[in-house]
Amino acid sequence: MTSSPELIVPTIDDIRAAAERIASHAVRTPLLESPHLNEIVGGRLLVKAEPLQRTGAFKFRGAYNTLVQIPENERKNGVVAFSSGNHAQGVAHAAELLGLPAVIVMPKDAPPLKVENTRGYGAEVVLYDRYTENREEIGARIADERGATLVKPYDDPRIIAGQGTAGLEITEQLDGNLDQVLCPVGGGGLASGVAIAIKAAYPDASVYACEPAGYDSMGRSLAAGAITGNDAGAGATICDALLPKSPGNFTFAIGQDLFAGGLAVTDDQVRSAMAQAFLRLKLVVEPGGAAGLAAALSGVLDCSGKTTVAVCSGGNVDPSLFADVLRDCL
Amino acid sequence: MTSSPELIVPTIDDIRAAAERIASHAVRTPLLESPHLNEIVGGRLLVKAEPLQRTGAFKFRGAYNTLVQIPENERKNGVVAFSSGNHAQGVAHAAELLGLPAVIVMPKDAPPLKVENTRGYGAEVVLYDRYTENREEIGARIADERGATLVKPYDDPRIIAGQGTAGLEITEQLDGNLDQVLCPVGGGGLASGVAIAIKAAYPDASVYACEPAGYDSMGRSLAAGAITGNDAGAGATICDALLPKSPGNFTFAIGQDLFAGGLAVTDDQVRSAMAQAFLRLKLVVEPGGAAGLAAALSGVLDCSGKTTVAVCSGGNVDPSLFADVLRDCL
Repeated sequence: MTSSPELIVPTIDDIRAAAERIASHAVRTPLLESPHLNEIVGGRLLVKAEPLQRTGAFKFRGAYNTLVQIPENERKNGVVAFSSGNHAQGVAHAAELLGLPAVIVMPKDAPPLKVENTRGYGAEVVLYDRYTENREEIGARIADERGATLVKPYDDPRIIAGQGTAGLEITEQLDGNLDQVLCPVGGGGLASGVAIAIKAAYPDASVYACEPAGYDSMGRSLAAGAITGNDAGAGATICDALLPKSPGNFTFAIGQDLFAGGLAVTDDQVRSAMAQAFLRLKLVVEPGGAAGLAAALSGVLDCSGKTTVAVCSGGNVDPSLFADVLRDCL
Repeated sequence: MTSSPELIVPTIDDIRAAAERIASHAVRTPLLESPHLNEIVGGRLLVKAEPLQRTGAFKFRGAYNTLVQIPENERKNGVVAFSSGNHAQGVAHAAELLGLPAVIVMPKDAPPLKVENTRGYGAEVVLYDRYTENREEIGARIADERGATLVKPYDDPRIIAGQGTAGLEITEQLDGNLDQVLCPVGGGGLASGVAIAIKAAYPDASVYACEPAGYDSMGRSLAAGAITGNDAGAGATICDALLPKSPGNFTFAIGQDLFAGGLAVTDDQVRSAMAQAFLRLKLVVEPGGAAGLAAALSGVLDCSGKTTVAVCSGGNVDPSLFADVLRDCL
């Protein structure tokens, strides 16, 4: 890793090492292609299918890569994490596999499916109020009380290197050139890790941070040249997995260096992309997980005549919302 | 291939040759696993995810393997196939890739999505009445008129060898032992090909033919020791892909030799399995495609303490039916 006083940025070698650590537990998710989707964008569109990852989202990659590096003598005190859902499940399941106790701090309004699954992996769930309480403080207090290791959702080089293994797989699976990559961004752990891996193999490819309109803090931070938070009053979005307060210090720095820019997509564009993934890929994608695919299919980013990879980051969506999307869009 | 006056049964070498023929076009579909599904069956349950195959079903494997072997001088007259849907799409897309004209004979009541997709692959679709017309006769007449090659849906050694590549992949992807395989059966092309591949690597594994209750002609034929047709008055089932008149001559002979038996599942068991595949695997499975998974999850076959592979054979399901399944089952 290269380091400065403030920042530790993972290298492609850190991502390769992470890939070896997770190889026996993580799914090597397929890169899917549909002639129908190619026709819609007028180019070649490949989809990295992270809903097929263990726990239904990419988060397992970074969680396992981090937990497996916790020293033996610190393991008995367990881990603590705060998350609206997918990081929670990733940490809980990685902890279960490694035999560590896990406490997960989740918002009271997280999708019931994600809360239930987190408990299903054997974790203790502590609920908090997203609007009146600070999850970082709650997580830090629990870590302090129990001597547990706090596992950050994105702003940690081990997490970023772990998520980057999805990008490394893309470079290994791709048969030909690559012009652009679309990646959903909440805190930016996935996109920054993917960008490091993609740029190592395809220095000229453009990597875009895809966010819900109104919660496009990475895009606005990149445009402003400084970390800019999301407005708490930005209104509702169905992309529950992409609602951070702001990009992380690490992920923003990597983004400044490697991202081509940010793209914002509407809920309607996201719903339409979820329906297309159902219809053409037979893949269940959750709203936030479809932000990159939505940017491609809706024309927010021109993909004509190009080879584009859209990372679909997760598939943990409540059945009733998914049924509504199918009824409304198809 | 080993042959008798009546029957040509593909060998594992034919399946290996088919795998080489289709390698550059077919998806090597993943073998998925979920701790939640393992818990339900009390054993290890792996799912071969053929909905992720090109055209959304395993049928592309056999279709491409067959069409690519048509001699150059016969190609210009094209191919003709009869199918309720997935074979139609497989043949149409394989023909499109190979530049052959294709005519597909489909029942008027086939799912609209399957008819639309078949046309989308560039095929000419001829509709017939399932209750008053004979699709074999229509297909044979068109083949005769145009000099086109008739591509049978299952009772052909090239088709069976092609479908068997799904089984070959299972044996390559599996890390450990294998006790039993559950495979949906319509005409039996997939299950017979899979059985040949599985038995070559795991001679002691049991392969079960999974059918809709009331349309379990393979199971009843195996029990009777002779081909027994489905009763036209058996009532409705949502498994539109699994409604043959009877098993094929080839597929029944292979089944007699290699299947452990037949299992029948109800529509409710199928719907529940589709919901679990959505929830735990993020995979869209059509009713017929879920017959094997349904047998495992509902306990029709005891999977406790065993390693079981359920082949999910396709995902071409109309959105409204899928939305209903989610609302009713979850």
